[in-house]
Amino acid sequence: MSINYKLELMYDGSAFSGWQRQKNARTVCGELESAIKIITKQDVELCGVSRTDAGVHANEYVANFFMDIEFPPEKLVVGINAICPDEISVKKAEITAPDFNARFDVKSKTYIYTIDNTQYGNSFMRKYAWHFKYPLDLEAMQEACRSYLGTHDFSAFMSQGSTAKNFERTILDACVTKGADGIIRFSVTGDGFLYNMVRIMAGTLVWVGKGAISPSQIPDIIASKDRKKAGVTAPPHGLMLYKLNY
Amino acid sequence: MSINYKLELMYDGSAFSGWQRQKNARTVCGELESAIKIITKQDVELCGVSRTDAGVHANEYVANFFMDIEFPPEKLVVGINAICPDEISVKKAEITAPDFNARFDVKSKTYIYTIDNTQYGNSFMRKYAWHFKYPLDLEAMQEACRSYLGTHDFSAFMSQGSTAKNFERTILDACVTKGADGIIRFSVTGDGFLYNMVRIMAGTLVWVGKGAISPSQIPDIIASKDRKKAGVTAPPHGLMLYKLNY
Repeated sequence: MSINYKLELMYDGSAFSGWQRQKNARTVCGELESAIKIITKQDVELCGVSRTDAGVHANEYVANFFMDIEFPPEKLVVGINAICPDEISVKKAEITAPDFNARFDVKSKTYIYTIDNTQYGNSFMRKYAWHFKYPLDLEAMQEACRSYLGTHDFSAFMSQGSTAKNFERTILDACVTKGADGIIRFSVTGDGFLYNMVRIMAGTLVWVGKGAISPSQIPDIIASKDRKKAGVTAPPHGLMLYKLNY
Repeated sequence: MSINYKLELMYDGSAFSGWQRQKNARTVCGELESAIKIITKQDVELCGVSRTDAGVHANEYVANFFMDIEFPPEKLVVGINAICPDEISVKKAEITAPDFNARFDVKSKTYIYTIDNTQYGNSFMRKYAWHFKYPLDLEAMQEACRSYLGTHDFSAFMSQGSTAKNFERTILDACVTKGADGIIRFSVTGDGFLYNMVRIMAGTLVWVGKGAISPSQIPDIIASKDRKKAGVTAPPHGLMLYKLNY
């Protein structure tokens, strides 16, 4: 009988070619599967909550996998953390319900996209924020951001290469804040996201901030379902999967 | 006539052998002096607020230097940031009073020492916190920390190799806090610090937290003036020079 294991983890995406296993590339999933093989001698396949791109970070991440043997979850945690690179940390492992699926059971996800809006570039944010040094109109970005709320067909905010067939997603919460240190954070919670959707939303907000798009145009851009109408795809290293709600 | 230039900067100390220039080592001061030489063709000597050790970070740092030529400060900022590694960011440059001295004119400094007290080790704090995974008694650390306040001879909290002759320093503020994420921060403000003083204070707090030293012993340890009575010197990468008051 196969047992379903659930892992709660975090990772600094800087050093990886994203989550999903690939031949000849260092991925988070690949590192974890190799570690589990060393510890348990079992070949397992991880199912992760999201296929994050290269450079994207995760503060909270959940994956599950099936294994025919019973293995103490706390030993999995210690073993994986000992074997995996320091950029991956498993916080918790547990045996979970047989029908639990990390990808399909998540109710909502919160992403934070970070923009370093200082002139000089914060030394500590190089790998965790998009350094955009030109002036940004924060209020315009906040106004634009509110148009993301609700249920829409977000085709205009999707990169090619997706296998999605339904393009409707619900944005439950979205806000833009700026700290005294010049760091802007775009926080967005939704029931699901299309391929590169948060990065295109962030890039569009920056286009609004610099005056290339007016906040009042956002509803039209959404309605157009035309990727070319939205802003740039913001670089991956500013993106962090922040919180999961199951 | 020599002109006095003041630089406000920050740096991620991970990649450097500390602040102070050294032959055959990559130091923050050395990188800045080389960049200024390229930009201005002048040989300058920087005077920094503190000689931070290898691996120690600075969120706020001030240095000054004299140059015989007049050079637009805003061009210094752009030039230095273009030439220096990304781990160093100059926020501001200005021409300052001829008698300004970054080291001797600072009235107080605030350091933050960060301890990652999670079992698993936060992926994002590897270079910015001491990962100490065993249980720590927060209240005991907070009580011990209060004994640092005030004016004392801190010889017991000083490493060998210092040239200091007066060992009395005044701690104006000190506190220990723990976040929901398991990260403990020891924040300390003083009019000055002896060599390795904050790291020994932090190490002593951890020794208190794990029960090896009782909080009530701290006044005796200070009074003993004996380095052997205090706790370990905490590792450098958890230390950040956080704020300066001139």
